[in-house]
Amino acid sequence: MDTQVVIIGGGPSGLLLSQMLNRAGIATTILERSTREHVLSRIRAGILEWGSVEMLREAGVSERMDRMGLPHDGTYITDGDRMVHIDFKRLTGKQVMVYGQTEVTEDLYGAQDAMGTTILHNVEDVVIKDLDASQAKVSFTVAGERRSLSCAYVAGCDGFHGVSRKTIPEEKRREFERVYPFGWLGILSRTPPVHDELIYANSDHGFALASMRSESLVRYYVQVPLSDKVEDWSDERFWSEFKRRIPASAAARLITGPSIEKSIAPLRSFVSEPLRWGRLFLVGDAAHIVPPTGAKGLNLAVSDVHYLSEALIRVFRSGDESGIDGYSERALARIWKAMRFSWQMTTMLHRFDGEDSFAAQMRRATLAHLAESETAQKDLAENYIGLPF
Amino acid sequence: MDTQVVIIGGGPSGLLLSQMLNRAGIATTILERSTREHVLSRIRAGILEWGSVEMLREAGVSERMDRMGLPHDGTYITDGDRMVHIDFKRLTGKQVMVYGQTEVTEDLYGAQDAMGTTILHNVEDVVIKDLDASQAKVSFTVAGERRSLSCAYVAGCDGFHGVSRKTIPEEKRREFERVYPFGWLGILSRTPPVHDELIYANSDHGFALASMRSESLVRYYVQVPLSDKVEDWSDERFWSEFKRRIPASAAARLITGPSIEKSIAPLRSFVSEPLRWGRLFLVGDAAHIVPPTGAKGLNLAVSDVHYLSEALIRVFRSGDESGIDGYSERALARIWKAMRFSWQMTTMLHRFDGEDSFAAQMRRATLAHLAESETAQKDLAENYIGLPF
Repeated sequence: MDTQVVIIGGGPSGLLLSQMLNRAGIATTILERSTREHVLSRIRAGILEWGSVEMLREAGVSERMDRMGLPHDGTYITDGDRMVHIDFKRLTGKQVMVYGQTEVTEDLYGAQDAMGTTILHNVEDVVIKDLDASQAKVSFTVAGERRSLSCAYVAGCDGFHGVSRKTIPEEKRREFERVYPFGWLGILSRTPPVHDELIYANSDHGFALASMRSESLVRYYVQVPLSDKVEDWSDERFWSEFKRRIPASAAARLITGPSIEKSIAPLRSFVSEPLRWGRLFLVGDAAHIVPPTGAKGLNLAVSDVHYLSEALIRVFRSGDESGIDGYSERALARIWKAMRFSWQMTTMLHRFDGEDSFAAQMRRATLAHLAESETAQKDLAENYIGLPF
Repeated sequence: MDTQVVIIGGGPSGLLLSQMLNRAGIATTILERSTREHVLSRIRAGILEWGSVEMLREAGVSERMDRMGLPHDGTYITDGDRMVHIDFKRLTGKQVMVYGQTEVTEDLYGAQDAMGTTILHNVEDVVIKDLDASQAKVSFTVAGERRSLSCAYVAGCDGFHGVSRKTIPEEKRREFERVYPFGWLGILSRTPPVHDELIYANSDHGFALASMRSESLVRYYVQVPLSDKVEDWSDERFWSEFKRRIPASAAARLITGPSIEKSIAPLRSFVSEPLRWGRLFLVGDAAHIVPPTGAKGLNLAVSDVHYLSEALIRVFRSGDESGIDGYSERALARIWKAMRFSWQMTTMLHRFDGEDSFAAQMRRATLAHLAESETAQKDLAENYIGLPF
């Protein structure tokens, strides 16, 4: 056997899985289709559940996060100028951590380099085979050369567009999907955050999110029609639209500046079942996508890694297959809860084109209920800070 | 002035309003289009919030209710054979009361008779006029004779199809509506209830509700396509369908019997704003309809009567118009919360024809969340037992 586990994909889930396995003495090889620079240039999630924070500590990659991350005690949900504070700390005793996915990935690369694990970049044409044999085989092209690795297990951490999920025969997969009729236009700007906590803003002009990466770097979004292009949105237009969607009290304090990144992402809910196919296991975006409302994407990948690393360590240590046999069901149980939460947050906070007046009133009534009911706030808080693994 | 308040409609809201006003020395005349026997033959709601129970006590009509009503500490929500108990008593400290609308109406007729208030039956062709003058005028035909009453205020308690709402000019009304693509087939049967609490049953075959009126009279429902007719449903077919929708443990205990009433009702959410138009006030179904899931219809009518009776007593006693000026807004705030709850319960529990697999999963995930989260159970319980007036 060339290696114990081949991990397809060198993003945060692949790297974290490799980190957990290598710390337990299990050899891995990571195959990543792009360069490390490219992986590190992707702006993605920015909010870690406390369970994810603890998982990164357990993986030994928390030094910089614990120094630079911003623990947040709560968040704001707004309806026009009405701001509802969801006090995570008071309602659940827990916090979340503002720390960008890019930083998590950088920390993981550093830790993997220190351990001397194998990460191949610019890997193309990956083919996964022999998943029902005594060893799996992964073939690929790197630096113009066709290579092949035999292994005990393959972890598909290669995202929505990756080859791993598609390796499971189509007729054996059950896929569930909801495509939302809008996208998020996001900008990154070196300005101080408009508020010390995130603001999820529902307004008559559509949704906006005031997020941040640090005390001097903001990540702000506005809901846009799917037909919009980045070129349609000058910085000036972005700031003016963002300003009218957040509460007036926040808008009055807003400091604007040039964007250093600007992109539009569609919103999608997607789950593919099962997560295991013979010697292949799907992890993170390879099997499921959530809309960003509620910040569950990276956190779900972390909980998948938690379940899978535990299961693989068990089978390598003692031959006990109960963990890998139960991985799909165990991970999916938590995934569906986060799917529900993300779908509900998305539905509650966005304007849907062509929604009738009753639907609009239900959206408003849901926000009013949240504003007035401590129980509803607690329900949101418990889901936002993350359900137990 | 012929009377102080003309009340259009002799159902529970009109009668309760009349009762509250007369106890405060305010003279009313009730105009009802059908006979008392007809009003008392209508099978409607069966669950009273505790606030409604207290309101009926305050109105002096609680003797029979307190003797015959069944206080319930909780209810069951099921998904297939999985039963989730919502323990109202533990979660909120409150209960609900099983006591049929027909009984409430009978108690109110008795109390009104004892007070000698005027209730005209078989009243036709009601016309409401002069709502912006110093006195309003209500004309109508009774026993072949055209009559007219002058009054200070008119209360529209005449239901969804009544004349009161339509008296407000169409361009001055804002209407919100959702028609659901299914109905409820309900039967009444003299059999012992299948369980000591209600069962809201979600199943792969659609929704069913095991409700009751007493310890020997049940009210059971199944979700049916809107195109179905009562004639399509023999008792035998009803019992067989009902049985496969409730959990197996309940189905095993089910005692069936002949139906003594059987009908199909469509499900609708509807609100018309405002509730006040000059000297006219809308109450209950005249202004708003909820689907029966969550038992809010009669209870909302009771809270409307609470607000309106308080407001009218104040203006007659001291000339203070703040109550009647604020009635519409105050009542609507509570109405919209109940609309949201009823819509959410309906959406969570019914199968929607043509729903995609993602929507079905979200329905399941919502029920799973309810099963696993005490906070979600408490949120449901707080709304079910009734928000404060």
